[in-house]
Amino acid sequence: MAPRRSRNGVDLTAPTTASTTTTTIAAVAEEVGVSVATVSKVLNGRSDVAAQTRAKVEESLERHQYRRRAKKKQTGTGQVDLVFHELDSAWAMEIIRGVEAVTEPDGVDVVLSQLGGAHHPPQHWLDAVLARRPLGVLFVLCSPTKVQQERLRRQDIPFVVVDTDSATTASVPTVGSNNWNGGLVATRHLLELGHRRIGIISGPKDVLCSRARLAGFRAAHEEADVEVDPDLVRYGTFYLDAGYEHGMALLDRPDRPTAVFAGSDMQALGVLRAARQLGIDVPRGLSVIGYDNLEVAAWTDPALTTIDQPIRDMAGTATRMVLDLAHGQDPSSSRIDLVTALVVRESTAPPAG
Amino acid sequence: MAPRRSRNGVDLTAPTTASTTTTTIAAVAEEVGVSVATVSKVLNGRSDVAAQTRAKVEESLERHQYRRRAKKKQTGTGQVDLVFHELDSAWAMEIIRGVEAVTEPDGVDVVLSQLGGAHHPPQHWLDAVLARRPLGVLFVLCSPTKVQQERLRRQDIPFVVVDTDSATTASVPTVGSNNWNGGLVATRHLLELGHRRIGIISGPKDVLCSRARLAGFRAAHEEADVEVDPDLVRYGTFYLDAGYEHGMALLDRPDRPTAVFAGSDMQALGVLRAARQLGIDVPRGLSVIGYDNLEVAAWTDPALTTIDQPIRDMAGTATRMVLDLAHGQDPSSSRIDLVTALVVRESTAPPAG
Repeated sequence: MAPRRSRNGVDLTAPTTASTTTTTIAAVAEEVGVSVATVSKVLNGRSDVAAQTRAKVEESLERHQYRRRAKKKQTGTGQVDLVFHELDSAWAMEIIRGVEAVTEPDGVDVVLSQLGGAHHPPQHWLDAVLARRPLGVLFVLCSPTKVQQERLRRQDIPFVVVDTDSATTASVPTVGSNNWNGGLVATRHLLELGHRRIGIISGPKDVLCSRARLAGFRAAHEEADVEVDPDLVRYGTFYLDAGYEHGMALLDRPDRPTAVFAGSDMQALGVLRAARQLGIDVPRGLSVIGYDNLEVAAWTDPALTTIDQPIRDMAGTATRMVLDLAHGQDPSSSRIDLVTALVVRESTAPPAG
Repeated sequence: MAPRRSRNGVDLTAPTTASTTTTTIAAVAEEVGVSVATVSKVLNGRSDVAAQTRAKVEESLERHQYRRRAKKKQTGTGQVDLVFHELDSAWAMEIIRGVEAVTEPDGVDVVLSQLGGAHHPPQHWLDAVLARRPLGVLFVLCSPTKVQQERLRRQDIPFVVVDTDSATTASVPTVGSNNWNGGLVATRHLLELGHRRIGIISGPKDVLCSRARLAGFRAAHEEADVEVDPDLVRYGTFYLDAGYEHGMALLDRPDRPTAVFAGSDMQALGVLRAARQLGIDVPRGLSVIGYDNLEVAAWTDPALTTIDQPIRDMAGTATRMVLDLAHGQDPSSSRIDLVTALVVRESTAPPAG
């Protein structure tokens, strides 16, 4: 395990006694030419420090590898921050339920925020968190920048990223699901039914889980020795209207695919809508497979074949991890991928004729 | 406005100066025969006070009409507690989005919790809130007991109830929507289409909004001089499976209704599923109307006719109200009902033959 990830005080890069910590702050203050109080303000995310001074102090802290003295925190108190890239509907609610299932019995409060679609939190958000000192932070589909990671580590506030792109470095504890495998299994199912022209509506290009699923989609094609038509590969948000738009674009062409693999159940609902409008019967004229296995997937007409993503478990595992870190325990692993599974319902069938 | 609701320090029942407050605490301590520190502990929700002592102190505080000295709180900081009766899916997410839309620009954090289905928070939850001292509390489909209301008032923590039964007394600020009107408008729509046997799946009997909608349902029947068949009135939770079960019970009888008014869009999806299983075409063989106008209602097949409930606005208005109270402003009104509206889509039509 990289020293950086250790939070229980045995980390060799972090001074572990009060006196060492005090010495470091004093040394930084002297080096930069400011008071100890100013260094303290920077550490605590206070805004009343000039930007230039702050930058100098940050730089010196980094050089001295300052870490707040690790202290075992009391169990059964405190707050965990839960930060969403965006608050969409059912998917985000599953995450919230998974987090609550772990925090509630522990008497830990959940502070909720969302970044309005941004992938990294803004400076003022981090300042507020540093000032509040939660037990830890859970980032969902977003992650702290490298500088923000450093600031959190310095203040001994652990964080875990849920279901992100693996673009986050190995030093960031992450809980996700095996997206490549999900893409592979979904596509295999369609190929095994006999489909040879399969469209895919992936999530946004800049979200790594989308790219992983698409890679799984390609791998399944390679296995079956079937070529992927690049015209049938589309990118969109995970919402209903994206599924509808891209569904229309895919289905309203002479050489339309006989099956569509959607990036989410919500997208799949949009594809079903597009098929209905074009008078295409699902599954006789078109197979549709979703992703996530939200509750609603079992209730659509036809009921959706989909990839079960253990959303609540992912959130619960990440929460357990952040609380363990907060209480000074190293997690058994810092990169966990939970298993996805195919759920066959009514929306997939062999291609017509 | 009742004195109890005033939170800006002009309330005649509340001592408003530091000295009065101190006098009251001392008086209570002397009366009960405990230390001032013990009274303080009770006020701050600390658990290390014997139950009997706590009860005596509470009683004395009530008799003395103790109120924490009203202090104008700083804007732009602090937390608001958001407490759900239960975290279901899309409906709760709409509430959360409505709250976030108001808190985020104000830099206020949202602390989320849920009561696992209970209608009143447990003692330990309130103790934690009193110890944390948030700006205010938003209760969704749940409410504090009378004793809990007193404890919150004493500590000057304002609270607002969202979309509850009006069973909460007039002294509790509430934001809801006009459920009676929603029930009336939905039923009128079905009657105007020519339906005479209309089933209703109401929410749970102990939730007042269900009873209000049912009363609206009855009022529309009276207007049209059509009798309500008591066999067609059913109660269930707001979820998909309740809609399915009660839908099956209503539709699988020789004198089945030609239309069903469901208590939520989720319930309506369950009814659509039941109709499909019984081979009944919607809307030709059966009209179905939902309630809430969740995003998914526009995307089902057939798209749902429903009652638009301004969920986000309700949450936003309640949040604004609680922040105003926290900053010492009286709200213009303490009981707000937002307007519901009929949204006609594909799931309703005149009855066959």
